[in-house]
Amino acid sequence: MIRISRPELEGCVSHILEALGIPGEEAEDSARILVAADARGIPSHGVARLSRCINGIQAGLIKGGVTPAVLRETPISRVLDAQGGMGMSVSRKAMEWVIETARKHGVGVCSIRNSNHFGIAGFYSEMAARQDMLGIALTNTAALGVPTFARTPMFGTNPIAFAAPACGDRLFSLDMATTTVTRGAIEVCEREGGEIPPGWAAGADGRPIADPSRLLEDMLYLRGGLLPLGGEGDASGGHKGYGLAVMVDILTALTSGGTFGVGVRDSAVTSARVCHFFMALRIDLFRDPADFKQDMGRMLDALAGLTPAEGRERVYYAGLKSREAEERSNREGVPVAKDVWETIKAAACSLGVSEAVPQIRN
Amino acid sequence: MIRISRPELEGCVSHILEALGIPGEEAEDSARILVAADARGIPSHGVARLSRCINGIQAGLIKGGVTPAVLRETPISRVLDAQGGMGMSVSRKAMEWVIETARKHGVGVCSIRNSNHFGIAGFYSEMAARQDMLGIALTNTAALGVPTFARTPMFGTNPIAFAAPACGDRLFSLDMATTTVTRGAIEVCEREGGEIPPGWAAGADGRPIADPSRLLEDMLYLRGGLLPLGGEGDASGGHKGYGLAVMVDILTALTSGGTFGVGVRDSAVTSARVCHFFMALRIDLFRDPADFKQDMGRMLDALAGLTPAEGRERVYYAGLKSREAEERSNREGVPVAKDVWETIKAAACSLGVSEAVPQIRN
Repeated sequence: MIRISRPELEGCVSHILEALGIPGEEAEDSARILVAADARGIPSHGVARLSRCINGIQAGLIKGGVTPAVLRETPISRVLDAQGGMGMSVSRKAMEWVIETARKHGVGVCSIRNSNHFGIAGFYSEMAARQDMLGIALTNTAALGVPTFARTPMFGTNPIAFAAPACGDRLFSLDMATTTVTRGAIEVCEREGGEIPPGWAAGADGRPIADPSRLLEDMLYLRGGLLPLGGEGDASGGHKGYGLAVMVDILTALTSGGTFGVGVRDSAVTSARVCHFFMALRIDLFRDPADFKQDMGRMLDALAGLTPAEGRERVYYAGLKSREAEERSNREGVPVAKDVWETIKAAACSLGVSEAVPQIRN
Repeated sequence: MIRISRPELEGCVSHILEALGIPGEEAEDSARILVAADARGIPSHGVARLSRCINGIQAGLIKGGVTPAVLRETPISRVLDAQGGMGMSVSRKAMEWVIETARKHGVGVCSIRNSNHFGIAGFYSEMAARQDMLGIALTNTAALGVPTFARTPMFGTNPIAFAAPACGDRLFSLDMATTTVTRGAIEVCEREGGEIPPGWAAGADGRPIADPSRLLEDMLYLRGGLLPLGGEGDASGGHKGYGLAVMVDILTALTSGGTFGVGVRDSAVTSARVCHFFMALRIDLFRDPADFKQDMGRMLDALAGLTPAEGRERVYYAGLKSREAEERSNREGVPVAKDVWETIKAAACSLGVSEAVPQIRN
C-alpha cells in the first residue's frame, strides 16, 4: 500500500478519463468521487474501479458528454434517464438539483434510470447534510443477492446512505450495502484460503456455503450468491435485509422505470444500467438547525463515549471511522494498493498522459 | 389459541378503552390498530399489549382526549407534540394529514414527540400505499438495543416500515425492527428452556450471551441487551443494523426535539414517550401509477415465483405472509392466545363492560 497526495491522485484519474474523451467536468467529478472512497477507507469503491470504468468507456457502454433526459418533473421532483452517462457526474449534478430544490421547497427528490456505477452512496447524502439537510442516496446494482429462502440472485448489494449533520462540523453518515458483505469480501476469503463465514453467502442449493472458489464460480452462472443483511433464513433477520434490498430496487428502479432485480447485470455487451434515488429534506422543516445539530452532537458523543464491550477498544457511530480515515488521507496521502497503482500508471502511459502520473514519495 | 371475529374483538377492545374514559374515536383507532397486528400474525404488537395500555391510562401516563400541539408547520410538513396522547390515534390522524398533504403537494412528512406505543408501523405505511403513494413509518422505542462494540443499550428496536402498491390490490410492505429480534423472542427462549441463538443478544460484558434468564435480569438494569440486525461485532454487518437504528432515532426524535437513545425508558412514573416519523410520496411524482404498479406486480411475481432453497417450501416478499394471515383472520376470526383472552375478559368485567365480550365459537 502506498499513499498518494489527494489532489495529485484526483488529477491523474481525471487526465486518464479525459484522454478517453470524457469532458473535463465529468472526468473531474468521477476522479473526485472515486478518490473520496479511497480517502475514506473504502478501496472497493475507489480508484480500483477505474479499469472497469475505462473498459466501459472504450466499449461504448459508459458515455461521456451525455445530457440526461428529463422524463418527468414537478416543483419538488425529477425523473431522469441518464442514457448510459457517467454515473458519478450524473449523480453529483442530480444531488445538487435535489439540494437546490429542497432549499426552495423544503424537499427535493430525484430518481434516475440507465445510469452507471456512482461510487460511494455516502458522497451524495453527505452533500445534503453539509447544507443543513437530511440526505438520502440509494442505488441498485448488478444482481448477486439471494432472497430469503431462495437459491438464485434477485437484487444487488443495493446500498442505503443516510446522512445528518451535527455540531462541530460532524456528520452521522450511514452508507451500507443491504447484503451482509459485498462480493469483494468473498474474493478476500478466496485469496486468503479461508472459509466463508456463516451468514455471508448461499450456494447453488440456497444453503450456506463455505468454499469461496466454488461460490465465485457458481455466481457467474447466477447460482447462489450473497445473503441479505441478517444472513440465511429468517431466524436472524435475513428477511429484513432482503426487504431493505427490494425497497432500494423500488425507490430507484420502479420509480424511474428502470431495470430491477435479475435484469441488472453486467455482460460483454451491456453495462449494468443501474438506477439511483436521491432525496434531501431541509432540517428547518422540523426544527431550528442549530438545535437539531446540538442534539445530534449530544447523541454522537453519547454513542462514541460508551464503555466498549469486553475485548473491544472503542465504540463508533456511522461515519466516524471514514471521517478519521479521510483526515489522515488529507494529511498523509490517499492509500492505494500497489497493484491498483501499477494498473493506473499503465493506463496513463498507454493513453499518453503519463506526465499526469504523480511521483510517489513513499 | 382461539379465533375471535374481527369486528367483535375490535368492539370489545374499544369498549374497554372507552370505559377507561378514552373518547370513542381514539378508542376505536386503538382497537382497530391493535387487532390488525393480531390479524396479520404479529401478536407481539396486538391485543396482548392492551393491559400495558390500560395500566398506562390508569396511571395517567397515557391520556385520552389530548389534542397534539403543532410545534412547526410548513405546506408539506408538520411537527407535533403528542403530549402523552393515545399513540395509535395520534398516528392514524398524523398519517392522514401526511397523505392529504402529499395529495396536494406530492409529499407530506410529519414527526411527533411525546407519543405512546403506536402498534405496528406497517399499518401507517400501508395507509399511504393504498392511495398510490410510497409510505414510510418509523418510531423509536424504549432503549434495549446495544450499539456495535458496546455493552449497554442506546436505542430501541426502532422499526422501519415502507410500503408500495402493486397491481392486483397487492402491497410490498416491509415492517422490521432494526434489532435482530425483539425482547419477546428472548422471553420465548426462556419459556422454552432454550439458549439464545448467536447474533440476537449481548450480555453485560457486551459479548454474546446464551442464557435468556440471565439476560432478561441484566436488561432490567440496562446491562447488555438486544443486538442490532447483523448481530455481534461488524463481521456480519451488526454495525449496519446499529446505523439503521440510530437513523430511526434521528428521523423520529431528533427532528421532533423528543427523547432519544437511552432516554427512552419505561419506568414506574413515566411512560416511554416515544417519537414517530411519517412520510408519503405520491407515485405520480415519478411515473404513471398504473405503470408503476404493473412493474411492481412483475417484481413481486418474480420474487414469489423463485425456486426455493433446498429444504425450504416457498419464497416470500415483505408483506405476503401477513397478507395471507389477515385474509384467514377475516374469514375465520383473529387468533388470540388463551391467556391473553382471559386477561381481556377480566379487564372487561372489572370495568363493567362484560356485555361487550364476544361469545367464542371455538
